Amino acid sequence: MLEGGSALIDITQWLWFIGGVLFILVAEGAVWMYWRQFGPGSIRDYISRDEEPNGPYKVLAKFKTPAQKVALIEYEGDYHVFADGSEMFSTTAEDDKFAEAIVHIPAAVAELHERILIIGSGGGITTREALRYSEVTEIVAIDVDPAIMHMGKTLEPLVKFNKGSLNNPKVRTRIQDGRAYLEQTSETWDVIVIDLPDPSRRYPELRRLFSVEFYRLLKTRLEPGGAVAVACSAASEMPEYFRAIQATLKAAGFHVIPYHYDFIVELGVDWGFCLATVMPVNKRDIRLKLPAKHLSRRRIDDMLRMPIYFKTRWDDRKIQTDENHLLADLVEKAGG
Amino acid sequence: MLEGGSALIDITQWLWFIGGVLFILVAEGAVWMYWRQFGPGSIRDYISRDEEPNGPYKVLAKFKTPAQKVALIEYEGDYHVFADGSEMFSTTAEDDKFAEAIVHIPAAVAELHERILIIGSGGGITTREALRYSEVTEIVAIDVDPAIMHMGKTLEPLVKFNKGSLNNPKVRTRIQDGRAYLEQTSETWDVIVIDLPDPSRRYPELRRLFSVEFYRLLKTRLEPGGAVAVACSAASEMPEYFRAIQATLKAAGFHVIPYHYDFIVELGVDWGFCLATVMPVNKRDIRLKLPAKHLSRRRIDDMLRMPIYFKTRWDDRKIQTDENHLLADLVEKAGG
Repeated sequence: MLEGGSALIDITQWLWFIGGVLFILVAEGAVWMYWRQFGPGSIRDYISRDEEPNGPYKVLAKFKTPAQKVALIEYEGDYHVFADGSEMFSTTAEDDKFAEAIVHIPAAVAELHERILIIGSGGGITTREALRYSEVTEIVAIDVDPAIMHMGKTLEPLVKFNKGSLNNPKVRTRIQDGRAYLEQTSETWDVIVIDLPDPSRRYPELRRLFSVEFYRLLKTRLEPGGAVAVACSAASEMPEYFRAIQATLKAAGFHVIPYHYDFIVELGVDWGFCLATVMPVNKRDIRLKLPAKHLSRRRIDDMLRMPIYFKTRWDDRKIQTDENHLLADLVEKAGG
Repeated sequence: MLEGGSALIDITQWLWFIGGVLFILVAEGAVWMYWRQFGPGSIRDYISRDEEPNGPYKVLAKFKTPAQKVALIEYEGDYHVFADGSEMFSTTAEDDKFAEAIVHIPAAVAELHERILIIGSGGGITTREALRYSEVTEIVAIDVDPAIMHMGKTLEPLVKFNKGSLNNPKVRTRIQDGRAYLEQTSETWDVIVIDLPDPSRRYPELRRLFSVEFYRLLKTRLEPGGAVAVACSAASEMPEYFRAIQATLKAAGFHVIPYHYDFIVELGVDWGFCLATVMPVNKRDIRLKLPAKHLSRRRIDDMLRMPIYFKTRWDDRKIQTDENHLLADLVEKAGG
């Protein structure tokens, strides 16, 4: 202990000491804020920790659109587009499989393939598959997000992957809500593909594209011999969600055959779909109209056979309407 | 800027400033070290980040054994035992399902149920199921880790869950390597259950319990009308691993029926098993000898039907031996 006369110096020394403490805390805070705002941490709102690639990846673009936060990344030579944390599509084999499942199964049972409607056309990969039908005269590809559509039309790696489908003269693209589009047109379609994210607490308006009212409208826009496919999310994580969409389509007067394409090995999830038709269809009559890379006979048999993990109790009177929050609640319940 | 005469004070002030910087860095380092050594961070070697519960949990015990690092935690009213980061068993419905699948399927085809051998008896849950066969006269339950066996025998929530199976007079427990045990005995068994972790780069000696040499030995210890079940890991994450065990069992002269019990909804994985017998078995003849909570007829049909995601190319000449690293390499390849 120093004695006497040093009181002033002591205070100064303590001030400098505290200055040092504050300096390092402020510096650490600044580094954290930089990391969060401009560095790797800034991607967190765009790519959730769960879905982030395990290895190093390159962020090629990230931007906010009126609808969502979008990021484009490159990882192991493939391109991935994320929206609000979740992967929307990519240039990987998984997206080829998904697009084949959602396009070629309804096309397999549709009588004609002249007019195809795609609601939620995202990166143009489903449009690429739809264009393979030589009889097709018009495809309308709708997406609510202009930025996504713009990427699908202009971004070189995506355009290469979707073979320029969104710029094809047979394709009419529209930046619009799919429900609003169907309400204002009286055109009809041979095949309709609905490939939308889950309604959630965050985007409750999406229920208007999953509701019985919407499906009834859809039925009036479908040719009598036509077919609809509806993407039903990672159904293995929420079998009730899958069942609720089946029940809602049935309540709208459709015949429904649930099917699935598993990404169990790759991602640990099995993706559900509904095939909805006005005329009843026999599963055994589902034969592709053209060859598809991933849809072997054995695969199609597997797709049409419901594994036991989709089994769940469901009261078919519980359906999505324009008013309730059924699907969003089921997503929430499943922890999504 | 202060002018003149303050050089000495400046140095002192700077020293105090640096003292402040060092103080906070040392304090932060100490907090981190405490967190890692004694706080929540200290659990990381015991429970991997991937398998850690999503909500708050209580660490009831953690200790190092000669074989592994073991942690017992309580989460949402259930108890979970982790070894070296991965969950080994728990008091949840998943473990009931697993135990029923690995015990009652071989028992369904075995002619007798008097003598049952369980290699990797862990928490006594499979032993509990084996004890349900009233004809059983002796069960030998082997585990290489004395700490695990001790927990299964004495820890109140585990004893309650396994119904005191490891203390049952019909059960002889042994702390020993299963291979060593079988080499030194000439006893034979009606049902043999092999429930072991994957051979890995870290524990390569485990291959001696998956090798063709071991399976040949096993065959000499099995009654002619007996049956073996082998746990084949989260096979959906590594279908080749599943196929390699099937090939190895066949190379040892067994008839093999692969089966599975999925935890797709709960965990995103599907668990593989091999049913191995000396006499050929028809899948359709697999009927339980007693009722099991989770094994409905529909479930058993699903268990015996191989979903397409287990399909993989495999050359049946590629088998595990006492010498090679086949399974460990496949685990590594799958990123495990």
